[in-house]
Amino acid sequence: MTMHAALATAPIIPPERLPPLAAGAPDIGAIDQAAERIRGEAVLTPLLEVPAANAILGGRLLMKAEMLQRTGSFKFRGAYNSVAALPPEVRARGVVTYSSGNHAQGLAAAAQAAGIPALIVMPADAPAIKVENTRGYGAEVVFYDRYTESREELGERLAAERGATIIRPYDEPNVIAGQGTCGLEIAMQAAAKGVRLDAVLVPAGGGGLVAGVSTAIAARSPGTPVYCCEPAGFDDTTRSLAAAAWVENDPAARSFCDALLAPTPGRITFTINARRLAGGLVVTDDEVAEAMRFAFRHFKVVVEPGGAVALAAVLAGRIAIAGRTIAVICSGGNVDPALYREVLAGG
Amino acid sequence: MTMHAALATAPIIPPERLPPLAAGAPDIGAIDQAAERIRGEAVLTPLLEVPAANAILGGRLLMKAEMLQRTGSFKFRGAYNSVAALPPEVRARGVVTYSSGNHAQGLAAAAQAAGIPALIVMPADAPAIKVENTRGYGAEVVFYDRYTESREELGERLAAERGATIIRPYDEPNVIAGQGTCGLEIAMQAAAKGVRLDAVLVPAGGGGLVAGVSTAIAARSPGTPVYCCEPAGFDDTTRSLAAAAWVENDPAARSFCDALLAPTPGRITFTINARRLAGGLVVTDDEVAEAMRFAFRHFKVVVEPGGAVALAAVLAGRIAIAGRTIAVICSGGNVDPALYREVLAGG
Repeated sequence: MTMHAALATAPIIPPERLPPLAAGAPDIGAIDQAAERIRGEAVLTPLLEVPAANAILGGRLLMKAEMLQRTGSFKFRGAYNSVAALPPEVRARGVVTYSSGNHAQGLAAAAQAAGIPALIVMPADAPAIKVENTRGYGAEVVFYDRYTESREELGERLAAERGATIIRPYDEPNVIAGQGTCGLEIAMQAAAKGVRLDAVLVPAGGGGLVAGVSTAIAARSPGTPVYCCEPAGFDDTTRSLAAAAWVENDPAARSFCDALLAPTPGRITFTINARRLAGGLVVTDDEVAEAMRFAFRHFKVVVEPGGAVALAAVLAGRIAIAGRTIAVICSGGNVDPALYREVLAGG
Repeated sequence: MTMHAALATAPIIPPERLPPLAAGAPDIGAIDQAAERIRGEAVLTPLLEVPAANAILGGRLLMKAEMLQRTGSFKFRGAYNSVAALPPEVRARGVVTYSSGNHAQGLAAAAQAAGIPALIVMPADAPAIKVENTRGYGAEVVFYDRYTESREELGERLAAERGATIIRPYDEPNVIAGQGTCGLEIAMQAAAKGVRLDAVLVPAGGGGLVAGVSTAIAARSPGTPVYCCEPAGFDDTTRSLAAAAWVENDPAARSFCDALLAPTPGRITFTINARRLAGGLVVTDDEVAEAMRFAFRHFKVVVEPGGAVALAAVLAGRIAIAGRTIAVICSGGNVDPALYREVLAGG
């Protein structure tokens, strides 16, 4: 990604090449409705600012602290909105999903809050803390192999057997709308500080968070460019934006950003992101580790690898912050202590 | 400390044995005034609550997250209030203090914000992160030996040489009033949640934070007992409350709670705490380490050892939380990465 693209302020795909907007793509009204549904259940997370960090960067860095969200990541927003939106008789039969861990925890906690069963299909190599926590919220966990099995097929079969509803981790209108509430809050909190946002940077796996947030920002902070941020090797949304078409990641790619390993942009989310995003920013695992240490030292919060890519993009200079105000979403904090120790030992 | 004392709700020193209230002890009016002075400069830190942690504890645990305060600890509150309260011509000559690190950073940042010089006397064994940060806020640092030199004498001599004002870390009316704003916020945030606080637990070194907070809680959440929490070997306030007189710690005592190593309760602070506190709770370094891990896992925040004693008191069962609502102040997050790694490796 070049600096030029990073400073763009308009969508990067020309209108004639845009894929048609998918049915079910939520508008700002659906996001406002989600905000009503999650009020009092989800945390209105703080937009943190540290003067000492600003002094180092020469600009204003605002961190949306989603590690402080219920279940330790933004995923509770979309999961709770989806469960709450189900008709009661459907909801009662329970929910099923597949997830590397954060959506698993979010949906398990949402189901527990609603008093319904949840079954979660998780990769066998998911961080232990995410598996333990998912079970801790009362969900049943079934494992699959991330590199050889289809989690979608397994999830659909198990859901059909139980008459349960699948709540997909990102390609799900009510999930996208729920994640969008994070963008509503950023716009509101920036306005309360009296600051104009020069950019909003959002981690992207399947693209649900950035689809919802960019829709909210377009409505509530019009003119502010929104960027997706991805780990190297899993920059499918960034490359799909450049290609104006869905592209896939190399199956041989690896990253320690376990939350962001989706193989290709979502069917619904990409049609939103293609219209809304100003571009994509790509960071290395080393840059992500440095961002985790920066968050530890200056913000005193625990950020997991996948949650730190937007912060890493600023620190690694993928976008200019000098003299500007940039909001980054740090999207989760569910990291195993052993890995966190290893990260702190680096740098 | 027995469970019986921990459940007491009235001050534990009978009126006839109370030391007279020191001149300068702030009242609620001084704390309200401090709140006005720090507004927009200090962070209104969140009162965090994690349903999964509550489920483990069987009660409601509210964490006042002062690691998210400017400079990474509550100390900025009192430091900024003290600097702001000085007459302009006095303020211009600068400020001096002695501190194990958090007050050093708080005062350095407050002086920097006011555009005046700051000189800080720090122990030679202060955590490197605290020394670096203090210098990062533009302050001059002079070292002393914690076990053989008097930081008070050194500080007074240096202040006299420069015509600067000493802002003591805790035995200072405007510092105590500033720290009290943390208690105002707890009372306000609990009321906004619609909860009645059954107890507020506060880390204590010299006792400035708990003196200010207990004064605020008495006014704004009357009937809620406030406890000081201390590391074993540095339980001078707890023992002084029991003795109704100032007692000293054994000079041979050691703890990794570097922020809480004051030798005896403050001259002013103890006369407040003797009237306001329901008792003291004492925890071991191992219990503190466990609390730091609990905060990492469930709250996704970085807590330094001294900042975790109140949380440790709840987790170690020094006070009953089942069926109750307890607020703990986690007072800071300035911990060296190497020590934090060691703590995460334990347990």
